Amino acid sequence: MQFKLAFIGFGTVGQGLTEILIEKKEMLEKKFDFHWRVVAISDVMKGSVYDENGLNMNTILNLVKAGKKIDEYPIGTKGMNSIDTIKKTNANTIVEVTYTDVKTGEPALTHIKTAINEGKNVVSTNKGPVVKQSLEILELAKSKKVHYGFEGVVLAGTPALNLAKFSLAGNVIKSFKGILNGTTNYILTQMEAGKSYEEALKKAQELGYAEADPTGDVEGLDALGKVVILTNIVLGKKITWEDVKREGITKISKEDIEKAKSEGKRWKLIGCAEIRPDGSVKASVRPEKLPLDDPLASVSGATNALTYNTDELGPVTIVGPGAGRRETGFALLIDLLEINNKNK
Amino acid sequence: MQFKLAFIGFGTVGQGLTEILIEKKEMLEKKFDFHWRVVAISDVMKGSVYDENGLNMNTILNLVKAGKKIDEYPIGTKGMNSIDTIKKTNANTIVEVTYTDVKTGEPALTHIKTAINEGKNVVSTNKGPVVKQSLEILELAKSKKVHYGFEGVVLAGTPALNLAKFSLAGNVIKSFKGILNGTTNYILTQMEAGKSYEEALKKAQELGYAEADPTGDVEGLDALGKVVILTNIVLGKKITWEDVKREGITKISKEDIEKAKSEGKRWKLIGCAEIRPDGSVKASVRPEKLPLDDPLASVSGATNALTYNTDELGPVTIVGPGAGRRETGFALLIDLLEINNKNK
Repeated sequence: MQFKLAFIGFGTVGQGLTEILIEKKEMLEKKFDFHWRVVAISDVMKGSVYDENGLNMNTILNLVKAGKKIDEYPIGTKGMNSIDTIKKTNANTIVEVTYTDVKTGEPALTHIKTAINEGKNVVSTNKGPVVKQSLEILELAKSKKVHYGFEGVVLAGTPALNLAKFSLAGNVIKSFKGILNGTTNYILTQMEAGKSYEEALKKAQELGYAEADPTGDVEGLDALGKVVILTNIVLGKKITWEDVKREGITKISKEDIEKAKSEGKRWKLIGCAEIRPDGSVKASVRPEKLPLDDPLASVSGATNALTYNTDELGPVTIVGPGAGRRETGFALLIDLLEINNKNK
Repeated sequence: MQFKLAFIGFGTVGQGLTEILIEKKEMLEKKFDFHWRVVAISDVMKGSVYDENGLNMNTILNLVKAGKKIDEYPIGTKGMNSIDTIKKTNANTIVEVTYTDVKTGEPALTHIKTAINEGKNVVSTNKGPVVKQSLEILELAKSKKVHYGFEGVVLAGTPALNLAKFSLAGNVIKSFKGILNGTTNYILTQMEAGKSYEEALKKAQELGYAEADPTGDVEGLDALGKVVILTNIVLGKKITWEDVKREGITKISKEDIEKAKSEGKRWKLIGCAEIRPDGSVKASVRPEKLPLDDPLASVSGATNALTYNTDELGPVTIVGPGAGRRETGFALLIDLLEINNKNK
C-alpha cells in the first residue's frame, strides 16, 4: 500500500516514528511492500506544512531539531490547522500524536472521529480517546471501512494488543494481569535496592521516568487507563474508569518492602481484570506481593509485562518496554503494518 | 476460506487439534470466517478413511478413544496410504502429524514435499523436516503459492514464530535466548527444591514430561533443534545441527545448584544464538547461571520462555507452555488461521 501520511502533532513520538520510517524505508518496501510519504504536518506549537507530493522528512527533522518552526520548510502550503489538515489534504492515513487528556479525550477525540468520517485511517498513541470511547470509535471505523490503530497506548511498542488479536487468535482470554506502568515499577525496584520512596521517586524524576507531578503514575491512574483499555479490547467487555478499584504505591514503606523480602516476595503494582462466571467484570489496580517465581516478579526497572490467561494455552506472558520515544513511535508502525496487511 | 483437511498421522496432537476445531467451530466461523471439514485421515497404526464430503469427526474421535481402528468408520474409502491420501483426495490442506525423526526428517519430509508439489498447504508440528530443510521447503512452498506452517515445533502453542513474524514485524532481530525445553526446566526446578538429579528425572518420567530414554531432552538435543530452527527462521541465517555447541544438564550436581543459590542465581538450560558483526552465527545450548532478575530465571516447571533482542524495542520476552497435547494441537490452528488470513 502507498501511505500518504499526515501527522497531527509532531512531538517526540511522531519524530520517533519518522526516524524509523526513514531508516527502514528500503526494508519496509522490500519485505512488506510498504510504501510511504508524509504529505502534511500540523502541530500547534511547531506550525504546519502541506505538500500533496510529499515532504522531505529529513529537512523537517532538521528544522525541528534546530528548534525552528516547520513553517520554515521551503515549499508547500503553510498555516493549516489540524481539522483542515485532516479534511483538506490528500492524506489517506492520519497519525494522531497530540497531547493526551484522559478526562475529555480532546482534542484527539475530535481529530480521530473527523478523520474516520472522512474515510481516512488513523493510528494514534493517544490514550485519551481509547480510554473514553475505544469501542464506539472502532465501530465507527468499521462502518467507514477504515482502520483505527492504537497499539502504543498499552505497552508502547511491546505488541500487547497485536499479540492478543493475532498471535493468540483462537484463544478465549477471560482475564489478564500485568505490570502496566514503568515509572512505579522503577520506583519499587529502587526501593527493593534500599532506597526510600522519596529517594526512588526523585531518581525516577531525574531520569525522566516520572513527571514533576507524579500523581498519574504513583496513584495508579495511568495503569488504570490501561486496565480499562485491555478489558474493553481484549476481554471484549465495556467498562469505564469508575469500574476499576484503584490503589497507588505511595503507602508502601521501606518496612513493607523488607517484610516482603523476608517472605520471599516482591511488591508490584498490578493491573488486572477478569470476567466473572456471571459475565460481569472485576478490575483493579493495586500493589500486590508476588512470590519470586511469578513471571511478573522478576520484571525490574521501567520494563512492563502482561499475562493473558488463555483457554487453550493457560498463561502467556509478554515482557518488554512500556515507554520511550522511539519504542512508542514504533507502536505506530505496528498499526501501519496491520493496515498494510489488510490492504494487500 | 473453506479448509478441506487431511490428517497424515492421527496421534495425540492431531486429536487435540480436532477437539479444538469441533469445540470452536462456531467461533472460528463467526470471528475469522474460518470454515473447515476433514475429508481424510491416514494413520499407519489406526487405519485410513476418505470421504470427499467430509468425515464426522466426533465419530472418528469416539472410535479412536475406544481403541478401535478408523477403518470402522461406517462409510468412505478405506486403506489409502499417506501418499495417496495427499495426492488423490480433494484435501486442500494437509495436517502432517506423524512421528518425528530429526536425523532423516522422514517420513514427514516426503509427505510435506509431496503435498506442496501437489499445490496443497501443509501445517505440521513435526520438527524433523524443519530442522533439516525449513528454508528449502519454504522456498518450494513459495514457488507453488502454498503455505508451510510449523508454529508448533518451537514452543508448542506459545506463538514464538508468529510473534517474530507479525507482532514484532519491522524490527531487526539479531539474537535470541530462551528456555526451549520444558523437561530439563522441570528437572532443574525440582533440583532447586532439593531433589537430586536422579530423583528429579524420575519424577519427570512419572509425570510423562521425560521419556524412558531421556537423552534427547537432558543432553540438550531437543533444545538444539529449536536453536537451529529459530536461527534459520527468525535470524534468517542458515545453520545446521553441527553449528551449535551443546552441553546438557546431566553434569549439574546438587552442590552446583546450592552454590548458585548462595550467589543469588539459578541454573537454566539456555539455547541461544546471535549474529556476529561479520555476519556469522554463534549458537549454543548449555546450562547457565542466571541472576534472579533475568526474566528467564523465574520461569519454572515445564514452562518455556524466549527472549528476542530487537533493534527497536530491546529485549522482548514471551513466556508460555512448551508442550502438551492440546497446546501443540492449538499451534496447528495458529498456522491454519494464518493461511485463512492470507486467503481472505
